[in-house]
Amino acid sequence: MIQRLCLIGVGLIGGSVALALRSQGLVAEIIGFDTDPENLEAAHRLGIIDVMAPDVASAASRADWVILAAPVGAMPHIFSKLRSGWCEQTIYTDTGSTKSDVIAALQDAFGGIPGNFIPGHPIAGAERSGATAANPALFENRRVILTPVAETDAVLMGRVDEMWTRMGARVSRMSPEQHDRVLAATSHLPHVLAFVLTEMLGRKDDQEAIFQYAAGGFRDFTRIASSEPGMWLDICLANRAEIVPLIHEFRDALGRAAGQIENGDHDELLALFSDARTARQRFLEQLER
Amino acid sequence: MIQRLCLIGVGLIGGSVALALRSQGLVAEIIGFDTDPENLEAAHRLGIIDVMAPDVASAASRADWVILAAPVGAMPHIFSKLRSGWCEQTIYTDTGSTKSDVIAALQDAFGGIPGNFIPGHPIAGAERSGATAANPALFENRRVILTPVAETDAVLMGRVDEMWTRMGARVSRMSPEQHDRVLAATSHLPHVLAFVLTEMLGRKDDQEAIFQYAAGGFRDFTRIASSEPGMWLDICLANRAEIVPLIHEFRDALGRAAGQIENGDHDELLALFSDARTARQRFLEQLER
Repeated sequence: MIQRLCLIGVGLIGGSVALALRSQGLVAEIIGFDTDPENLEAAHRLGIIDVMAPDVASAASRADWVILAAPVGAMPHIFSKLRSGWCEQTIYTDTGSTKSDVIAALQDAFGGIPGNFIPGHPIAGAERSGATAANPALFENRRVILTPVAETDAVLMGRVDEMWTRMGARVSRMSPEQHDRVLAATSHLPHVLAFVLTEMLGRKDDQEAIFQYAAGGFRDFTRIASSEPGMWLDICLANRAEIVPLIHEFRDALGRAAGQIENGDHDELLALFSDARTARQRFLEQLER
Repeated sequence: MIQRLCLIGVGLIGGSVALALRSQGLVAEIIGFDTDPENLEAAHRLGIIDVMAPDVASAASRADWVILAAPVGAMPHIFSKLRSGWCEQTIYTDTGSTKSDVIAALQDAFGGIPGNFIPGHPIAGAERSGATAANPALFENRRVILTPVAETDAVLMGRVDEMWTRMGARVSRMSPEQHDRVLAATSHLPHVLAFVLTEMLGRKDDQEAIFQYAAGGFRDFTRIASSEPGMWLDICLANRAEIVPLIHEFRDALGRAAGQIENGDHDELLALFSDARTARQRFLEQLER
């Protein structure tokens, strides 16, 4: 049972953590802080948090758990505000979409990695954002990745693991580097492609209303282009070391496909499209497991 | 009322046309042909067609309507088989995903464009294919584009328009060139991107099972990579003149985004992502109209 939970960031993820913990009877009191006063008030009005804190330091004061559910670009600032009141008996964890940069920011702020900070990432994004989108069932059957480093306290990590499991999530562990490589491929690159395509076609749409002839496949393909721009700016910059080489790898593969289409290379194109369909089938089977 | 409908190709589209016409009481008898004997038999067993024809020419014999619902790569061969029995009183139309190449094949086969051939394209693809996927409601609220040329008979085009309207579709008209340009942007390019991405990640997945950490956004984004490879080979080759330059335009835009991520260009990236989100919102509003 968490006696006093401090939630830094009460958007979709933070708000859903609060609601899920409450619905499982796992928390007594929740103190929230958010840089957006309207969002903070919405979280309070909706019963997501019990108390609105005026800043990071007072929100975290006397908390036995602190969960950072803010965009990853905000982490360095948050760490600088937590430093003076840092408590060895408190469990700190985060929900950041990238992990190497969060750990680097921790190292910068503390001159070392505190063992009671457990880096984590629930893979549960959505188009919607903000406290009003929070949902206690958001983490059911979703993956959560914990990314311990050498300093990470194993006992405290076990408690964070248990918290996510009680919320219905399936918890895995991997290194921060592997996390960032895997997420760059399955999440960050697809988001960049969807943003770039939709922006490019949006310019054409101004001229000839092409969107009215796009079908359901296009709606699904571009859904992630409706994601929150500021959050994705943070993610792209935080994980640029993985994302940029992957974009170039994709551009090369796309260039080869363009050459095959131009030259009418039947066999190569059929193999490409068939291999893609087979790979997607494998993905769907992994989802069902 | 169509007395004797000849259907060349009884897959998802052809089969759905048959079921939709039947459900509206618009057709007396349907003769079908398909290059896949199993699919032809399934269409017969399911009551989609009344009679299985052994070849294109005998299927079309004495029909008052002929609908070509075959992959666009098969059209030249089909036209060569229809030529000797071509009937001036019959309405011919097609459902091909590309239009300039179908019209060029017609020109090649007949030495001119017969006025009673009405080029058309229902925008109603799906992941599933074959007669067993046919659905009488497939065209409800879907767009159908007719692409007349100078020779096209306006009265017969009106009848084809009416047929689609009776099936619940919304019919537009544009030139074959505009059709192919618009569809390259909203359908063909997204399919190529989904195929290339999924194939590329499929190779990585062999090494480290990355797909198990992909979320719902990835499933939506790659849905169109499950489309039928042979059909998409045809489309890419038929419309390569539009698709290849568009791929290069996309590669350039993606390269600019990669540079902005690498350099940490906050403002440019935020504008890119925000413009994409705005464009998608405009697309969703056009869908609802």
